[in-house]
This record gives sequence, structure tokens and C-alpha cells, in this order.
Amino acid sequence: MLDVSLVGTGGMVPMPKRFLSSMIARLNGRMLLVDCGEGTQVSLKNLGWGFKTIDAILFTHYHADHISGLPGMLHAINNTGREEPLKLIGPKGLVIVVDALRVIAPELNFDVEYIVLDEEQNKFFVSDIEIDYIFVEHSVKCVAYKFEVYRKGQFQVEKARALNLPKNLWGKIQKEGKAIFEGKEYTEDMVLGEPRRGIKVSYCTDSRPVKRLVDFAKNSDLFVCEGMYGEDEKLQKAKENKHMVFSEAAKIAKEADVKELWLTHFSPSLNDPEHFIKNATDIFSNTKVGYDNMTTNILFKD
Amino acid sequence: MLDVSLVGTGGMVPMPKRFLSSMIARLNGRMLLVDCGEGTQVSLKNLGWGFKTIDAILFTHYHADHISGLPGMLHAINNTGREEPLKLIGPKGLVIVVDALRVIAPELNFDVEYIVLDEEQNKFFVSDIEIDYIFVEHSVKCVAYKFEVYRKGQFQVEKARALNLPKNLWGKIQKEGKAIFEGKEYTEDMVLGEPRRGIKVSYCTDSRPVKRLVDFAKNSDLFVCEGMYGEDEKLQKAKENKHMVFSEAAKIAKEADVKELWLTHFSPSLNDPEHFIKNATDIFSNTKVGYDNMTTNILFKD
Repeated sequence: MLDVSLVGTGGMVPMPKRFLSSMIARLNGRMLLVDCGEGTQVSLKNLGWGFKTIDAILFTHYHADHISGLPGMLHAINNTGREEPLKLIGPKGLVIVVDALRVIAPELNFDVEYIVLDEEQNKFFVSDIEIDYIFVEHSVKCVAYKFEVYRKGQFQVEKARALNLPKNLWGKIQKEGKAIFEGKEYTEDMVLGEPRRGIKVSYCTDSRPVKRLVDFAKNSDLFVCEGMYGEDEKLQKAKENKHMVFSEAAKIAKEADVKELWLTHFSPSLNDPEHFIKNATDIFSNTKVGYDNMTTNILFKD
Repeated sequence: MLDVSLVGTGGMVPMPKRFLSSMIARLNGRMLLVDCGEGTQVSLKNLGWGFKTIDAILFTHYHADHISGLPGMLHAINNTGREEPLKLIGPKGLVIVVDALRVIAPELNFDVEYIVLDEEQNKFFVSDIEIDYIFVEHSVKCVAYKFEVYRKGQFQVEKARALNLPKNLWGKIQKEGKAIFEGKEYTEDMVLGEPRRGIKVSYCTDSRPVKRLVDFAKNSDLFVCEGMYGEDEKLQKAKENKHMVFSEAAKIAKEADVKELWLTHFSPSLNDPEHFIKNATDIFSNTKVGYDNMTTNILFKD
């Protein structure tokens, strides 16, 4: 099970009832945070998942509303007594920006490790979550992220029997991935069926609706996407500021055939995003308007 | 009239219902902000005084909880269309810290002017408020501020008559400070009585209760002072962390003979500061426990 929560859903400016866009994902008690604007720690406190097991903070880009909360977040994590390293992940510029902001968070009890994303880099794992990314189209270099949890195939009794593997090792090979019997090593791929469908969550702010987002988000269980403006009449403004209107996010969700779309990163001028939901649901019916601390638990399907 | 509001009242960590310690003062529509931690702009938005006429942001020191909201605040002020310069004021270190934080707020439509406070510097005016300061005792260089609004003496009819100043110039000399009559310049000091009592507000976080605070805050209409911990049992902790317990703040208020004491900068562990108010009121009865957006309008006394 992957738990996902929107820590904040606002764009540009943190507001009394809407903190800046951020998402957190939790698997087996370990967490990844995406973006960390001013006030993210406050909303995260409301959520109640704690700070200690945040293993990575991923940045889409370095506009202030996506990273201004980092010094405070580092202090909050430090206050938990964490000593394990923390990964900071983002496109080029990461080290310069973080180094500068740490003028007010110089002393931490844990190491900070950087993963700078470039065009060539492949997917990688943090904790048990595989992280993939693509570059999207904003006014500065900006990435969209995909989080994937894999699920092994089912144990195949007939395969184990055909190998003459004794029953008392069946549990061990599933748990530890291998077992030794009569001097020979048996690995799990010898006794498991085809890998089963896992869990896939995609996240994109801030960007225009580029074509490659469709392939990237393909078949996601959850696609969290910016919808800076609700009405199509704001399309020109969205183009100028390199953002999307609701209907554009819905179109990506539809073409990518995702299970569910959550809209986020609302303009401060968008008082009631729910008012414009039809602009999205007319195109992709399973769209929800995000709100701070909106949470879901995504289960493996059987 | 001087309007004063506590923008936030928390220490160390911004919390869902208590933002970080900060105070704003407003005179004739122009504002001074003291300290700007993460979330200050959110609480200031709740207050509703706007951002455009903030003429200066004063820092007591550069621990993250007192300055981490600066990049967002600069953006918020910039979004109002402000073009007048903004003064940033604080002890040594100001330029280095602000320059670093501006990595995420590099482009502003207004100039930033620095006033770096040192031991020698005299009081100075920003807008019509005189600013004074002293160095207090914290784990880093830290200042307490005093804000004073002066009030001229009353117009003395008998003085004006003795000078043969015609009645139609009485208004002009009071309004403009001078008037010309028959080729001679008359200045307001020639027609006004002794200056009257003005308004004095003092502000101190973070510090131990040093003796010089008593002289500094003397006769203030309002003394805003940190009370990190409510109970005297936390005195040792207060000493170690260079903070105060409620009773220490109250003792300064009493000795300084201030009109009113507001406690602020509460420890995150202090859930209900009101519970400990008696520890202060037993020493200085006119003590109030501060809360976010607590506001007063201090009038001239006649």
C-alpha cells in the first residue's frame, strides 16, 4: 500500500487555508516529499505523519514557492533526532540553491546527499520506491516525477515442486529472495510467477501540457497535475505563465488513461476551484479538486 | 495613533495555529515589520493590512525562525507593485544572509536598502517612527528594538499673538512647520508649547533578561517580550537556551514601569500559555498572553 497526501495545493503564494503545492508519499513507513514551499512543514504537521522518516525531498524546480520552506523543513527533520542521510533531488541548480538557503540551516545532525537530475540519468530507487522523471515545459528547467512500487509475482507451488525444493524453504525464498538446498542456491525468480501490477503515481507542476507527459503518466493509478486556472478563458494567461487550465490537465489524464486525476497548484485568484470542476470532468470524469491534506491509500490490485 | 499587531507568537517552529514571532507597527498607513519567519506572510494576510506600505523589515537576529519567511515576503511585497525602496535592518550579518536567501527572490521591482546596526549607531527614523535598539543576550548577536512616535507641543495662541503672526498663517505654520510673513520666516518652535508625551513600544526576542532592557523599555506604552517557557521550573532550560520564563519578562516590565506587557515567542511545547499567566501577573498585573493577530491601537494621551 502506498499512502499519498497533498501537503499543499496552492501556487505562487501560501494562503491562510491553502499552503503551497507539495505531495508526500509513504511506503512501509518511509516517506518522499515533493517540493517544499513556505509553510509545508506546518501543513505536514497537520497531517501527522511525522518528519523523521522523510528519506528524500524532490524538487520540481527552484521557484521560491517550491523550495522556500526547505530551511525550516531541515530544522524540523533535525529536531526529530534523525541521523540517517537525507537525499535532496532536483534538476541542475540544486546544490547552489540549497547551499545558499542553508545559510540559516547550517548545522544538521544528518548528511545531505544530492541527486542532480539530467537528461541522461536513468530511474533510480529511494527506499523501495522507483523514481522516474522527465523535463517538462515551464519558464525555468522543471521536472515531472513518477513514483512506482513494484510487486513480485505470486509463489508458484508447481515450480517449487518441480525443483524438489522442500516445503520448509518456501517461506524463506519468498522472504529473503533466495535459499540454499543441498549446496545449491535457489532464487525467487525460479519459483515466482510473472511480476504483478504495482502502483504508479505521477506528479506534474509547473508546466504547459506537453505531449510527453501523456506517455510518462500512462496508466498511473493517480496523476497529480497542476491546474493553475479553472476556466478555459484563462488559456492565454496559462500559456504566458507556462501553466495549465483544468481542461488541459484533464486531457492529459484522459489520453494517459490514468485511474484518477487530482488537480493542484491553484492560482491565489482561484478562490473556489470546485466551481470549475466540470471543465475537467467533462473530459476526464474521475477528476478531483485537490485540497490540503487530501489523502489516499493506493492498494495493490488483485 | 500607532497600530501594533503580533503577526506570530511562536518560537522555533511554525505551527498550525501559531506562526513564528513577528510584530508589525503601522503609523499613518506606513508599516514596519519586525522579524519574518516561515509563514509570516500567511498570518499577515489574515491581518488584512496589506503588504505594499511595509517600509522596513527589522531583524532581531538571523536564526531561521526569525528570517526564513523573507524570500516569500519579498515576493509578496513585489506582487503589490511596490517600487519604493524597502529597508532591511538588523545586526551584522544582514547582507550576507539576505543575499544568500535572495537566491530564490533575485528579481524585485524595488531596491533593497540595508541598515546594519552596530554598537555605535544612533537612533534613526523610518517613515515617522524613530527606531532605537540595544544588543541583548542570546546565543548569537541579537537586538531589542524600541519604536517611538513623537508628538509636538500644542499651538500657543499667546505666542503667535506676541509675534504678531496673522491668524491666517496659524494653520500653515502648524501644518508645514514654518511660514513667511513680511519677509521673515517663522518656525513652529516659536509658536508651539513643550513636546507632549508620544508613544513608545519596545520589543525583545530572543534574550535572557539583561539589566539594560529595563532602562531601554522604560515607560513604554507596550512592551512585547519573549516568554519561551511559562513555568519557573524551566528556568534552567531558559538559561541554557538563552531565553526567558514568564516571570522574568514580567520582572522587566515591572522595573521598567511599562503600561502593558505582551508575552510572545512561546516554545512549541507550550500548548496553552494562558495556563501559566499567573506566573507573570503576580509580578506585573497588566500582562497579556500574545496570540497571532492580537492587535492594539495606541492613542496619544491628553
